[in-house]
Amino acid sequence: MPWQDRPEGCTDALWRYSENPILGWNPTPSTARIYNSAVVPFGDGFAGVFRADHRTGTAAIHVGFSSDALSWDIRDEPIRWVDEQGEPYQPSYAYDPRVVEIDGRFYVCWCTEFGGAALGLGYTDDFETFVRLENPVTPFNRNGVLFPRQIDGTYRLLTRPSDSGHTPFGDIFVSQSPDLTHWGRHRRVMTSNKSTWWQSVKIGAGPTPIETSEGWLVFYHGVSGTANGMVYSLGAALLDLENPEKVLYRSRGYLLTPEREYETTGFVPNVIFPCAALCDGDTGRLAIYYGAADTYSAIAFGTIDGIVAALKADSELAPGDADSFRG
Amino acid sequence: MPWQDRPEGCTDALWRYSENPILGWNPTPSTARIYNSAVVPFGDGFAGVFRADHRTGTAAIHVGFSSDALSWDIRDEPIRWVDEQGEPYQPSYAYDPRVVEIDGRFYVCWCTEFGGAALGLGYTDDFETFVRLENPVTPFNRNGVLFPRQIDGTYRLLTRPSDSGHTPFGDIFVSQSPDLTHWGRHRRVMTSNKSTWWQSVKIGAGPTPIETSEGWLVFYHGVSGTANGMVYSLGAALLDLENPEKVLYRSRGYLLTPEREYETTGFVPNVIFPCAALCDGDTGRLAIYYGAADTYSAIAFGTIDGIVAALKADSELAPGDADSFRG
Amino acid sequence: MPWQDRPEGCTDALWRYSENPILGWNPTPSTARIYNSAVVPFGDGFAGVFRADHRTGTAAIHVGFSSDALSWDIRDEPIRWVDEQGEPYQPSYAYDPRVVEIDGRFYVCWCTEFGGAALGLGYTDDFETFVRLENPVTPFNRNGVLFPRQIDGTYRLLTRPSDSGHTPFGDIFVSQSPDLTHWGRHRRVMTSNKSTWWQSVKIGAGPTPIETSEGWLVFYHGVSGTANGMVYSLGAALLDLENPEKVLYRSRGYLLTPEREYETTGFVPNVIFPCAALCDGDTGRLAIYYGAADTYSAIAFGTIDGIVAALKADSELAPGDADSFRG
Amino acid sequence: MPWQDRPEGCTDALWRYSENPILGWNPTPSTARIYNSAVVPFGDGFAGVFRADHRTGTAAIHVGFSSDALSWDIRDEPIRWVDEQGEPYQPSYAYDPRVVEIDGRFYVCWCTEFGGAALGLGYTDDFETFVRLENPVTPFNRNGVLFPRQIDGTYRLLTRPSDSGHTPFGDIFVSQSPDLTHWGRHRRVMTSNKSTWWQSVKIGAGPTPIETSEGWLVFYHGVSGTANGMVYSLGAALLDLENPEKVLYRSRGYLLTPEREYETTGFVPNVIFPCAALCDGDTGRLAIYYGAADTYSAIAFGTIDGIVAALKADSELAPGDADSFRG
Amino acid sequence: MPWQDRPEGCTDALWRYSENPILGWNPTPSTARIYNSAVVPFGDGFAGVFRADHRTGTAAIHVGFSSDALSWDIRDEPIRWVDEQGEPYQPSYAYDPRVVEIDGRFYVCWCTEFGGAALGLGYTDDFETFVRLENPVTPFNRNGVLFPRQIDGTYRLLTRPSDSGHTPFGDIFVSQSPDLTHWGRHRRVMTSNKSTWWQSVKIGAGPTPIETSEGWLVFYHGVSGTANGMVYSLGAALLDLENPEKVLYRSRGYLLTPEREYETTGFVPNVIFPCAALCDGDTGRLAIYYGAADTYSAIAFGTIDGIVAALKADSELAPGDADSFRG
Amino acid sequence: MPWQDRPEGCTDALWRYSENPILGWNPTPSTARIYNSAVVPFGDGFAGVFRADHRTGTAAIHVGFSSDALSWDIRDEPIRWVDEQGEPYQPSYAYDPRVVEIDGRFYVCWCTEFGGAALGLGYTDDFETFVRLENPVTPFNRNGVLFPRQIDGTYRLLTRPSDSGHTPFGDIFVSQSPDLTHWGRHRRVMTSNKSTWWQSVKIGAGPTPIETSEGWLVFYHGVSGTANGMVYSLGAALLDLENPEKVLYRSRGYLLTPEREYETTGFVPNVIFPCAALCDGDTGRLAIYYGAADTYSAIAFGTIDGIVAALKADSELAPGDADSFRG
Repeated sequence: MPWQDRPEGCTDALWRYSENPILGWNPTPSTARIYNSAVVPFGDGFAGVFRADHRTGTAAIHVGFSSDALSWDIRDEPIRWVDEQGEPYQPSYAYDPRVVEIDGRFYVCWCTEFGGAALGLGYTDDFETFVRLENPVTPFNRNGVLFPRQIDGTYRLLTRPSDSGHTPFGDIFVSQSPDLTHWGRHRRVMTSNKSTWWQSVKIGAGPTPIETSEGWLVFYHGVSGTANGMVYSLGAALLDLENPEKVLYRSRGYLLTPEREYETTGFVPNVIFPCAALCDGDTGRLAIYYGAADTYSAIAFGTIDGIVAALKADSELAPGDADSFRG
Repeated sequence: MPWQDRPEGCTDALWRYSENPILGWNPTPSTARIYNSAVVPFGDGFAGVFRADHRTGTAAIHVGFSSDALSWDIRDEPIRWVDEQGEPYQPSYAYDPRVVEIDGRFYVCWCTEFGGAALGLGYTDDFETFVRLENPVTPFNRNGVLFPRQIDGTYRLLTRPSDSGHTPFGDIFVSQSPDLTHWGRHRRVMTSNKSTWWQSVKIGAGPTPIETSEGWLVFYHGVSGTANGMVYSLGAALLDLENPEKVLYRSRGYLLTPEREYETTGFVPNVIFPCAALCDGDTGRLAIYYGAADTYSAIAFGTIDGIVAALKADSELAPGDADSFRG
Repeated sequence: MPWQDRPEGCTDALWRYSENPILGWNPTPSTARIYNSAVVPFGDGFAGVFRADHRTGTAAIHVGFSSDALSWDIRDEPIRWVDEQGEPYQPSYAYDPRVVEIDGRFYVCWCTEFGGAALGLGYTDDFETFVRLENPVTPFNRNGVLFPRQIDGTYRLLTRPSDSGHTPFGDIFVSQSPDLTHWGRHRRVMTSNKSTWWQSVKIGAGPTPIETSEGWLVFYHGVSGTANGMVYSLGAALLDLENPEKVLYRSRGYLLTPEREYETTGFVPNVIFPCAALCDGDTGRLAIYYGAADTYSAIAFGTIDGIVAALKADSELAPGDADSFRG
Repeated sequence: MPWQDRPEGCTDALWRYSENPILGWNPTPSTARIYNSAVVPFGDGFAGVFRADHRTGTAAIHVGFSSDALSWDIRDEPIRWVDEQGEPYQPSYAYDPRVVEIDGRFYVCWCTEFGGAALGLGYTDDFETFVRLENPVTPFNRNGVLFPRQIDGTYRLLTRPSDSGHTPFGDIFVSQSPDLTHWGRHRRVMTSNKSTWWQSVKIGAGPTPIETSEGWLVFYHGVSGTANGMVYSLGAALLDLENPEKVLYRSRGYLLTPEREYETTGFVPNVIFPCAALCDGDTGRLAIYYGAADTYSAIAFGTIDGIVAALKADSELAPGDADSFRG
Repeated sequence: MPWQDRPEGCTDALWRYSENPILGWNPTPSTARIYNSAVVPFGDGFAGVFRADHRTGTAAIHVGFSSDALSWDIRDEPIRWVDEQGEPYQPSYAYDPRVVEIDGRFYVCWCTEFGGAALGLGYTDDFETFVRLENPVTPFNRNGVLFPRQIDGTYRLLTRPSDSGHTPFGDIFVSQSPDLTHWGRHRRVMTSNKSTWWQSVKIGAGPTPIETSEGWLVFYHGVSGTANGMVYSLGAALLDLENPEKVLYRSRGYLLTPEREYETTGFVPNVIFPCAALCDGDTGRLAIYYGAADTYSAIAFGTIDGIVAALKADSELAPGDADSFRG
Repeated sequence: MPWQDRPEGCTDALWRYSENPILGWNPTPSTARIYNSAVVPFGDGFAGVFRADHRTGTAAIHVGFSSDALSWDIRDEPIRWVDEQGEPYQPSYAYDPRVVEIDGRFYVCWCTEFGGAALGLGYTDDFETFVRLENPVTPFNRNGVLFPRQIDGTYRLLTRPSDSGHTPFGDIFVSQSPDLTHWGRHRRVMTSNKSTWWQSVKIGAGPTPIETSEGWLVFYHGVSGTANGMVYSLGAALLDLENPEKVLYRSRGYLLTPEREYETTGFVPNVIFPCAALCDGDTGRLAIYYGAADTYSAIAFGTIDGIVAALKADSELAPGDADSFRG
């Protein structure tokens, strides 16, 4: 997996890849911008499902492959889905995918059209054939992220209830399912509106949660509202291993905020939006993939130990996080 | 059950009770307005769960009893819930309840606080003890209405995905559950935004669906937006018996719109909001209970045959209704 | 024409018909409300073109006839138009018609769908066959009112440029045409945003201008914005006979504002919206027809002399009215 | 002073005058509505300063006199002010006056134009000559209410900081002055946004505080936001005698909310807005004057003992009220 | 005229001038930014009418001259107009001019103050004396573009009906005139709200239509709405030669979108706004002038053949475009 | 103090420091951005009070010291206040400080939480101990700037009344105080809404007024509203020495507007926000400190003579400025 050591003099828990961005304008013939993207180890290398904004403006999700997870061969055509009966299914738009391997199968959760923005769910075994499952929850929802294994016998899905537009609010919830089709026992995990200001407008989970000895490490985006628009930064939280609706630690300050030109300038200025992370189990090295300015794909590096230490050193639960909220 | 014959000269499918409203300002010591209310036959008479706005402005749901379903003895105290473990549970607010009897048990679905407006679910066997179940779907949602029996082995719930405020949009969806806890296979049933103007802003199901030989008869509210605010009217639809996500007929014109002073004037002017219906199986007589101006409780009468005939005579599916929408 | 003397003790220039409203809820089988309406002498009695809101919520214009201009026989079906080639034409909606007789032909100007609200134009000779002409001006526009004769060799049309929604602004303009098809030499006649508060949000011309020895007498609606919505009142102006873009007098205070229950309560509370006036040339008696609360049709009486006197006594041009504005 | 005993069966702390409203539409030749009004004992009878909306829509304040405080002789002309140098001063608009007698002089505080809505201040000794003083605080502000005597050597003024429009927020503050010209030591007394729902949008003090043995009795309006606009209700609070920035009791439920037609229907529906109270020191009888629907003047009766008892029985401080807030 | 060959490896139909921008900050002593500009061949070189934002913020239109159409000598003073009677006329603001030569005379159409944004029209023969004609259409309108010759005996004008602010909607219409003063037979040509996403908020014509053997080639801007503001891109359409209200082809994907720093950063980030094109009749070479970020002037190159081919290869009419819409 | 001569060829009254910005991202361990800052000569060098946005997003004010006013040693911890009784006081947020020396004591005025944004006031003698005084005026207010000496026996404070959010309006007012605690005699000095466009949304005073022989030289920010957000530019005004509520000259065009990358790109793009100026009395040299893009600290240079000359050459009072406005 990609890696660079922490730069001299840098004391942050996350640092940017020096060759960022790894994907720029017009990465394939029909697409304008590829950014919020989900990559996983696959075969001898890596596969990914990518948000690709076409020159028509429509967002679609595409497959790509890479041997080093830095240089990507992304298909110019969107993923073609079939439903469980094998009939073709094509969403009118699709964006912000997350991919997780559970028991050897790769599940994709993305934002799909369902009378407004909602969560779509499907799987692939080979990144060639993609089977669509039932939409897990009612609209409106975004930022659906599956846990990489069942917990206490059920699948777990982080979601972010939304509205039909650009959503000036939003908390992270978790739901359970025995079968990936029916979902319930919804709990609110973390709230935005009583938290620190960089994450006070809305929050949404990013990469697949990473299991550590201290809990599930979750990276998420948090949004603040300035006089000239929203700013998306990156934070982290540690959730209880057995009861992931319980927050153990949560970033008080952000870990990464838009500072570089590829983050502050582009189709949507001032956006850092993490969707995937590669993790080396032995070393604890992490490569976090994030969309920058809704235009570029970029990477930040860190280590699990470093991030957990930073989290413990600068953490504060919002009042609403103290106990998971059942309503 | 209450009944009045159709007034001389009236040709409408629904007509108002001549003694409307049946509940007016300050109906109990601590409450200011009791309006959107759910009544069912119970014992020798009738029981109901009522939305009661307290003088503090907070909405709560209360129990009431009546021998004639016209004159009500409503408790001054909100319902006290226990959860499935018997622990007390009290929502910070609760409104717009619906009640349905399934297999001898009375289920209540209402709008509850869950990081914003969401659906709460619970049951009672005796209108004394109320047990809260899991919230069925993720926020934000309102107007949850259970079907009175399982269909093809699963429970069915109509919902109306919403946002965190007064929601200037909204379609009716249906979800399935094997156990009343986990819900999935969500489908959009009817859409507001391509329909006739009185129902073009949003729609929401009202009373428990009534099984007829021709389909499930569903009354719903539809909202239009005028230069001076929203107007809530009442319409009906007939859903397929086996596949209730399929619309057979749907009101082109409304069946009832705010005309009377108790409908056009009050806490929220110009609101007709149906939440319950009593039906006499033998005669097909219906008494529809509706909130008026978020202030009064009122009744309208009709017959199943008359309404189904009116529906067939003046029906038009919105484009989005043609097939239930799976996303 | 209808008439009642000024009530004892009343000193206002306009007074309401004691039997108001003349049209109430559900005036025809398929319509819910008939209100903003245009009536003219026709044959031995009166004809009219009426805004009728159907029970679907859609607005359409209908024909009606009356012998006394008080009791109306209005058709349940909307007007069916043909274009100049005789092909059928039906607007998806139509509202707020004005009718004027010019050289023996009756011209109808209404608000029509043209990628948003715009002005439609057509004529009838017999109130049976209606021929649609070209839309006179580009969208968005409302409240188009033709003068009853050519001035200096051209037709003149008052308009009110608008936006695509409920339009929180709006001034009255006038345009010229040699042929009723091509329009130009647009001038702004009166402005809302520097005028007295009851007319500070927007204004729009009402009945056909009435030629008097002192100028064209124009009734119009003016709108103010309160903490709970817009209020539509009625005022008057006197325009120069030869140069109707020049304002001679204009109401400082309104002549009529919503006070009665049929004006303050209904589908859109607090609306008085004049669209037509019958005038007796000999006596100067006027009967002004106005929509009330977007629900009812009502009448107010006055005399030309009385109104002109009131106008002179309580008149003030807004700064923008001082000279017609050419841009 | 006016009085009616509590109606049979009524248990409320406040009850309406049976002959409400005491002032209706078009009370004087040039005015349309006189409502939010300040009355005080004066000479052998009563004097008042009245908000009068002219037929132009402009709000002005007028003087009126009455022998019974029910039937009023209100001047058709606005108050003409002079400044401290005797030069004429006329505000472009003026509304919502309060009047208080301090040491034999009558002070008027109203809402005046000062680059937006702000507080104006002045005095009269005879209700003939009115002298304007300096505006006490910076814009934007409304609902300024002076205490009837100095406390601990300084004048005290309740204010409600606002914005430049219809202000969807607002708390009550208090300021001190040694000279009625310079103001400081501002404190927040009560907050709206953590209080019960009927008063959750904004609040504003009404009549002059009434000194009781238990504290300063303050009536105020509280506003809630419904799907169809704002609703203004009436509540009360008891402030500490020595430190009036300290709240002792505060209404949990409202004492009066719009229920009657003259309160729910009019220029601005659903408004109860108290501005003055007459108090009989011996009996503790109170007559509270309030504007209804921004159209009518009305009265409610109660007694100090009854209201204080009601307040103690149904009181709850909002978290922000616990201690007066200095920033 | 300016020209650069397509860069190596580029397959786009349009490519940027390598020396962009050709005009930067503070191009003349009194102006801050010159961007949306209209250039034409004139005499031995080129003339232009330029939008110039003064340091006061006011937009005005200025004349400029150039021998190579790259380096411009722009006057520091705005154009001084006379009306048809020779009287001076000066608009309070003027922006986004287009210039077209018809029968040897240069017509200027711009956005002018006329009770809000509207279209101004005038002409010059020598770029020294400018004569103002009547405003062609009623407010509110922007992006008026004349065809370079009469079609079937009438002048044709593309317009974009707007509102009084930043206009979150907008379609392209066409009107006809026999005399450049009176306009009618308005038709809607292309709609934004059913088109691809990059052009779904609003669209507006840019340079003068270019006559080709296959139709009128029209470049236009299309706008999409992101979480952080509007993005203006460039597309093209081919209109029927005889009936230019008929769309033959229309861009599915944009031809140019803000990618470069001078397009994504400046006074209004993320704007590409074409207003003029130079065309070499022999070679079909095109130089399109566009404003960048409301700050810079820039050029893109292409060929008629290349663009028409691209248009045919990636074209899709929006439903509303299928037939020109008459209302 | 810092200084650079005017660059060759530059004719502007202000020019940027060539090494801008002087403070960039992450200037101290816990802070992300330090920008709107107040510097003064202190001891042998300079001291400053800085707005520092922490990585939590919260704004605080910090102390810093410098020997050359270019390179700053800023403390990582916010200022700790005590009140006049010596009790600790800590505002929940603090931003946009101004510092002025009056009679040897340094006063700090900043934006503080007081039920919304309001002005805080305090002083220090040594930049170690900071004593908080009473908040001078009622909320909502920002941009409070004290004059450096008493005028006619009273302290003077420029303020900018605001609302509770991002405030789309705002004029500059001045208040007087005999004791720095009680404030009155408020006057409006300059208005935004009738001024040139770059300053038409709102304005706010910046550095401490500089006494010159011709009047008080005040730098201020002015804001215009574009299709993609607000742009903050810098202007100047000269106020009467004896009656500083009287404007003598005021910028017609801005003196500085965002052009450089550090001004157009960052946390809030397109902001130039001056808060302090160093002035050399002998030479009239000025170094103006301004925040750039709510991210960077930058400096511009000029001379008093040059600026006053520029002001006289390009000045225009807005109608509302002609006389200070007392309401």
